[in-house]
Amino acid sequence: MNTSYIRHIIGQVLKMEATLMLLPCLTALIYKEPEGFAFFITLVVCGLIGFVATYKKPAETTIYLKEGCAATALCWIFLSIFGAIPFVLTGEISHFVDALFETVSGFTTTGASILTDVEKLSHCSLLWRSFTHWIGGMGVLVFLLAIIPLSGASNFNLMKAESPGPSVGKLVPKLKHTARLLYMIYIFMTFVEFVLLLCGKMPVFDALSTSFGTAGTGGFGIKADSLAGYSPFIQWVVTIFMILFGVNFNAYYFIFMRQIKKAVSMEEVKCYFIIIAAAIAIIFFNTFSLFSGIEETLRHSSFQVASIITTTGFSTTDFNLWPETSRFILVLLMFIGACAGSTGGGIKVSRIVLMLKTVKKELYTFMHPKSILKIKIDGKPVEHEVVRSVNVYFISFVIIFCLSLFFLSFEGKDLITCFTAVAATINNIGPGLEEVGPCGNFAGFNPFSKIILILDMLAGRLELFPLLILFHPKAWKELLVTQKSKRHLTKAGKR
Amino acid sequence: MNTSYIRHIIGQVLKMEATLMLLPCLTALIYKEPEGFAFFITLVVCGLIGFVATYKKPAETTIYLKEGCAATALCWIFLSIFGAIPFVLTGEISHFVDALFETVSGFTTTGASILTDVEKLSHCSLLWRSFTHWIGGMGVLVFLLAIIPLSGASNFNLMKAESPGPSVGKLVPKLKHTARLLYMIYIFMTFVEFVLLLCGKMPVFDALSTSFGTAGTGGFGIKADSLAGYSPFIQWVVTIFMILFGVNFNAYYFIFMRQIKKAVSMEEVKCYFIIIAAAIAIIFFNTFSLFSGIEETLRHSSFQVASIITTTGFSTTDFNLWPETSRFILVLLMFIGACAGSTGGGIKVSRIVLMLKTVKKELYTFMHPKSILKIKIDGKPVEHEVVRSVNVYFISFVIIFCLSLFFLSFEGKDLITCFTAVAATINNIGPGLEEVGPCGNFAGFNPFSKIILILDMLAGRLELFPLLILFHPKAWKELLVTQKSKRHLTKAGKR
Repeated sequence: MNTSYIRHIIGQVLKMEATLMLLPCLTALIYKEPEGFAFFITLVVCGLIGFVATYKKPAETTIYLKEGCAATALCWIFLSIFGAIPFVLTGEISHFVDALFETVSGFTTTGASILTDVEKLSHCSLLWRSFTHWIGGMGVLVFLLAIIPLSGASNFNLMKAESPGPSVGKLVPKLKHTARLLYMIYIFMTFVEFVLLLCGKMPVFDALSTSFGTAGTGGFGIKADSLAGYSPFIQWVVTIFMILFGVNFNAYYFIFMRQIKKAVSMEEVKCYFIIIAAAIAIIFFNTFSLFSGIEETLRHSSFQVASIITTTGFSTTDFNLWPETSRFILVLLMFIGACAGSTGGGIKVSRIVLMLKTVKKELYTFMHPKSILKIKIDGKPVEHEVVRSVNVYFISFVIIFCLSLFFLSFEGKDLITCFTAVAATINNIGPGLEEVGPCGNFAGFNPFSKIILILDMLAGRLELFPLLILFHPKAWKELLVTQKSKRHLTKAGKR
Repeated sequence: MNTSYIRHIIGQVLKMEATLMLLPCLTALIYKEPEGFAFFITLVVCGLIGFVATYKKPAETTIYLKEGCAATALCWIFLSIFGAIPFVLTGEISHFVDALFETVSGFTTTGASILTDVEKLSHCSLLWRSFTHWIGGMGVLVFLLAIIPLSGASNFNLMKAESPGPSVGKLVPKLKHTARLLYMIYIFMTFVEFVLLLCGKMPVFDALSTSFGTAGTGGFGIKADSLAGYSPFIQWVVTIFMILFGVNFNAYYFIFMRQIKKAVSMEEVKCYFIIIAAAIAIIFFNTFSLFSGIEETLRHSSFQVASIITTTGFSTTDFNLWPETSRFILVLLMFIGACAGSTGGGIKVSRIVLMLKTVKKELYTFMHPKSILKIKIDGKPVEHEVVRSVNVYFISFVIIFCLSLFFLSFEGKDLITCFTAVAATINNIGPGLEEVGPCGNFAGFNPFSKIILILDMLAGRLELFPLLILFHPKAWKELLVTQKSKRHLTKAGKR
């Protein structure tokens, strides 16, 4: 394994994190909060470690997919550890595991919280929480690729490991160009939402945090009741932007390139909108008696559907109290998730579409054994490799899900709480049902369960494989072998 | 489609059912119960219809897989409809949907009941209920193949459609021989259990019903408390036989042929026993405080694990009251199910093993992209077709599961009840948790939900595809086209 390259990448990520921590420091200055010191100290330490780690350039810049995966997983772990330190230093979250849970939840755009009263937090901490969503949404390594001149075509392996969905859309031939373009679209859309929220008379601080949370499809609220206290206009704006951030960014690229037809004909995006419309319709009729009037019912059902399918996790009402059919639809949406190539989590619409097509094809072959049918998406035949990897992804997903549920069951909490807690973390949503519903939180779990849920959030965000490979015994063995042989070489050189 | 062949097969099945109904008639004679008349009337009608349907031999005996599937699904539906009539005629189950639910639950070896007080039933009805388990366990068409000289090599397609597991083990070259051998082993094992239960001082009627229920891995009890009231010896005997009937029957064939080594080295069977041992160990420690002493804890945990993994559904204690970890393990076992080629239901151990191996292979390929690894089971490489069909099976399973859950959610019952009700029917187990737990029943569902659950039971028993194909619009279209063209031909002939 190319350990020096992995070290270098981690160093770059830490330097980047130090830079990003300037934002909460600035917020602390504006609001004159002493909590800013915690961020400043972390910033300095983080920056120094990053500087040391990147001081020596790696001799060899070629990496393979397994190294890309290991590097990505390690970057996210280091990022989260340093991101959690300020919360502990300020004393706002006393236990490190809790702070780590909150930060991982932020970076993975989950939005699950262990805080019982979020309104007690300082402004700088609140903004940092929401900002982690924004950073994690598009991906830290994509960001790195956009700004730092990393040489070597093998960077593609980094992006492949971090990007959501079955395959990285090779939008433009140059990776750096792609990364920059993605971030440009991302920043532009976040800005538009921010402006619209200001138009709805939302305070600047609230609008900024909410925009960050929506863009990353994260879901950390800055109020105890999430978005329930804001005006209908603001709720509608957030609904629309949640849906927009759940769309495959390739569609925006096509629109940007004025290939509107291509954008409109994307099968995944079409299915995504059909699912949203169907879910809203069912929930609308199912919850009609709970609210007063069509607008209110439509607003709450649209908001919740958008919030769950895009795996954001904001709420305007306690959907834990909704009828069973609506609750079930929401749980189903948790697993479907947003489009591939968006900032959302879940299994992804494209995988679901592909799996449905596989079944359809199999049934057809059963009835016409001599037929040869190829699965197509967007009119193009899908490679056998992709179909297989989607199936394997789904099976791994179920295995990780069951294992997590098993470990959580020792707590003795009810099955719905445990089931939706795992579903809400592995799909990067945030709230679940019952104890972890929109009015509850994850504080009631013991540290062991919290660590399981932290791993679930990371596994969900990195789409299982990078984390599975990082924890694969063979990967560690190879890492150790490389280091040993290096030491051996150094010793031999000294002689 | 070869409709005349399908008609002929259905007729044969009905004639067979009429013959099998002699058993409850005989029971009624012994116990001098007037309910016997209902069975006698059904017997006569069923036999007559069967006689008429089989009077004209089909001109063409070649059938393809799709016809095999359609014929199998239709046979099971007709079998269940006629099996349900006596319950309605005796007035013991007043609603036809309820009677159908009970009969489908019997034939599919599910064991889910809508009866609130099973002890009120007459002896003949009780025995018929348990006997349906025994008939359905090994499969009605397998039985037909064993006794009736059906010509044509395409009968293999019938057996393929009805047999559980990813592939029909071609034990012996001749299909009829295979079917007979399977039934010989089946009858022998049922008889041994019956004798052992008699040794445990169980009444003859109880021992017969329980043996039928165990052999088919069905689970209808004849007492309100299932097997809780019997002695520990009887409970141990049933535990061991449940496990034995969940083993792949190929293993018994090997033992029968004195190829003990081959039987012992079967990977699926090994995994099956490992899963059972692990589940018993976990539940043993988890429920230790609930019972007095090691024997009692071990007995109840072994019994419940055996009952659920083999999808039998007997119970000796109300496991709905167990701690969450044990409840979760039981729910997990519901999905794993027994071995392929046994009388048990569920996803089947071989499919689970294959799926785990697929993930392992994928991870290995991720780390060593140039490697070529073949998935092997029992030392033999598994064909790509089988792997794909297992993946497709799993995906179809999840889709049917979610759809059923959606339809059930309209009832407004809690999610655990609905979830385990679907799990218990599609996996052919019987009891679930909460309202449908071992001390509850399925009477609380409305007729619509019951029909959904009936379809789930059939889909589970026939392993999804036959039923999916039967309900495929294209299959119906072809059926109609064949009939129309026939009528056309007949008219043309008359002119």
